[in-house]
Amino acid sequence: MVPGTLRFEQVGPLARITLCHTHRFNAMTRLMWRELRVAFEHVQLSQDIRCVVVAGEGSHFCSGGDISEYAAFRFQEASLREFHEGDVWGGLQAMLDCDVPIVAQIAGNCMGAGVEIASCCDIRVSAQSARFGAPIAKLGFPMAPREAALVAREVGAVMARQMLLEAALFGAHDLKAAGFLSRVVDDDALDAEVQATALRIAALAPQAARMNKQTLRELNQPLAGVSSGFSHHKKVVKSTLNPYAYANSAEHREGIQAFLDKRKPAF
Amino acid sequence: MVPGTLRFEQVGPLARITLCHTHRFNAMTRLMWRELRVAFEHVQLSQDIRCVVVAGEGSHFCSGGDISEYAAFRFQEASLREFHEGDVWGGLQAMLDCDVPIVAQIAGNCMGAGVEIASCCDIRVSAQSARFGAPIAKLGFPMAPREAALVAREVGAVMARQMLLEAALFGAHDLKAAGFLSRVVDDDALDAEVQATALRIAALAPQAARMNKQTLRELNQPLAGVSSGFSHHKKVVKSTLNPYAYANSAEHREGIQAFLDKRKPAF
Amino acid sequence: MVPGTLRFEQVGPLARITLCHTHRFNAMTRLMWRELRVAFEHVQLSQDIRCVVVAGEGSHFCSGGDISEYAAFRFQEASLREFHEGDVWGGLQAMLDCDVPIVAQIAGNCMGAGVEIASCCDIRVSAQSARFGAPIAKLGFPMAPREAALVAREVGAVMARQMLLEAALFGAHDLKAAGFLSRVVDDDALDAEVQATALRIAALAPQAARMNKQTLRELNQPLAGVSSGFSHHKKVVKSTLNPYAYANSAEHREGIQAFLDKRKPAF
Repeated sequence: MVPGTLRFEQVGPLARITLCHTHRFNAMTRLMWRELRVAFEHVQLSQDIRCVVVAGEGSHFCSGGDISEYAAFRFQEASLREFHEGDVWGGLQAMLDCDVPIVAQIAGNCMGAGVEIASCCDIRVSAQSARFGAPIAKLGFPMAPREAALVAREVGAVMARQMLLEAALFGAHDLKAAGFLSRVVDDDALDAEVQATALRIAALAPQAARMNKQTLRELNQPLAGVSSGFSHHKKVVKSTLNPYAYANSAEHREGIQAFLDKRKPAF
Repeated sequence: MVPGTLRFEQVGPLARITLCHTHRFNAMTRLMWRELRVAFEHVQLSQDIRCVVVAGEGSHFCSGGDISEYAAFRFQEASLREFHEGDVWGGLQAMLDCDVPIVAQIAGNCMGAGVEIASCCDIRVSAQSARFGAPIAKLGFPMAPREAALVAREVGAVMARQMLLEAALFGAHDLKAAGFLSRVVDDDALDAEVQATALRIAALAPQAARMNKQTLRELNQPLAGVSSGFSHHKKVVKSTLNPYAYANSAEHREGIQAFLDKRKPAF
Repeated sequence: MVPGTLRFEQVGPLARITLCHTHRFNAMTRLMWRELRVAFEHVQLSQDIRCVVVAGEGSHFCSGGDISEYAAFRFQEASLREFHEGDVWGGLQAMLDCDVPIVAQIAGNCMGAGVEIASCCDIRVSAQSARFGAPIAKLGFPMAPREAALVAREVGAVMARQMLLEAALFGAHDLKAAGFLSRVVDDDALDAEVQATALRIAALAPQAARMNKQTLRELNQPLAGVSSGFSHHKKVVKSTLNPYAYANSAEHREGIQAFLDKRKPAF
């Protein structure tokens, strides 16, 4: 069997990160979590990427963690902590710290780790047949605190409770109604819709997008304080201290001048 | 007339708490608030309860507070404060502090105190003919700060403002759309749906459920600081300081082993 | 061309504030932002206003900021900051600080500044043909931090990201589903629905409404801390320190006595 991995591609201003572990419906291995962190740190340091798409290889987004690895580390407290705080949160935090807009392309199973990864994306587009949940109560363990905080914030407390306390599964329309998904499309329209979304984002002012993400992220700071004793992952780029330093930038001048000239801006 | 009371029943791992004050549509008396606290402190200290259902006797959930008692204490500041901070919040805080999953079974009127009690439940299942609101602006008084914070958090700010500033009433489908209700079912299917939900929860890993509730509760801590000068109710059980101490537990091992063995876990 | 202005009217307990700049679809000029602050400080100090309606003159609510003014001040950091922190936030903060219930009457375009102004209203009623968005990424600049925090809180993070990162536009039913709008009505029913709402609010206990607004506002305090270095606008009225001081008030006694007497209260 082929071990799980991440594929990173870039075409012009668009990056694409694909979770590849198809014989396990793209379940995340520890290696894949570490690769996720590396991939998003790369995006954050890049100067020319304007939008990132996260998708799963084949017909599923991500079915959760790779349970075949669990017996090796989950039953000792130290290694369990290192898994959640190091591998998993390392990947998720790198996504949350990324200033470039992220679009999730969701099909098939989006469970557990899949919901967590999608929760770090800005725009979530789903095929209508996708299925969502986090039925780990069937596996005898709770969601780690920061992961639960992240999911509850994005899917809402009511749905988070149903996922965690009932092990309930949901369809794409439920997640749209809960405010988690931006759009639900026919299964065969998913590729085109995500590509169009990414191109639309890439055509807009890139500095403004980064600043908007920094601002919206700051609203979510309480996540970091969910539980004490967490190691801090150092952020690659610090958020701006001055929200008005962009005043004299070329992008700002171009956008307003183009409007006044009644022409399309070129960012 | 029969004075209001609470009925507590337990069958196996399922507890059931029934608000009984039928000639006033289960309006909460001061005594019932105190009984609510006692009941949930009992649940929290119990070792074998895995799910609690909260319901109203007869065809209503709870129509609010028992206004016939109000003239006796509401017009003096000290006794008004004692009512809200002692009796009412004592009951609600005991529910919020309870680590066992709570299912609300909602039918008929769910008004004022009824919305507050439902707001402390994890999974809310409603009959489609149920009615919701908090029309106390017609009674000339505001919602007490912590109660308003609780309700606004659970029904959302927009609906809370309509309830409090317009004295607006809503149907079950409105509360479903607002993300407050987990499920709305036909009136005659309510009993069966709630029972099935409770059994489903009771079959899942009980330690994981408690830990998930502790985590989700921690996200809501700001509630406690809504207003200064509140007395602190001592919690029966403190939340865990170590979210990974469960690593070597039997429940955790059973869940993962059962998955690997392709059999149903026995928690 | 007629310069933009605000019109203030009062009939009995109802005030009406109209954004008047029709040849620019009621785009906000700097002067209009300052007038907005003055108008709401007046409302707050008034003793007899029980409800305020905010509407746009003609067929639009507000199309955003008046871009024709932007070249004069946006490209220097100091004047850009003064615009956002002084003019814009001065107006919005006065709305947020207002203890009197505010109803937004939304028709036509509700974009950028329009969404921000609507976000400060308690009850939002919209014509079904209204359009919503904040497509400033096309103008090359981000939303200022406190404005973005306000909008994200009211429309939800998912929709805020679509507005800011995709420059997406939405219809009234989308904003209803997102929990932003209280009601969506046929275009020709908007006037009557808003008037009925305002009259209904004005007939309820006015002291209770002010206290409820103070409580709900306190839940949103984190907004103030979104970014450092902001100047503080002094509030006209401080929120009450004692949430139970109303115990012996005439309004409280009247509401409960009327209920016990089975008559309509007169507040």
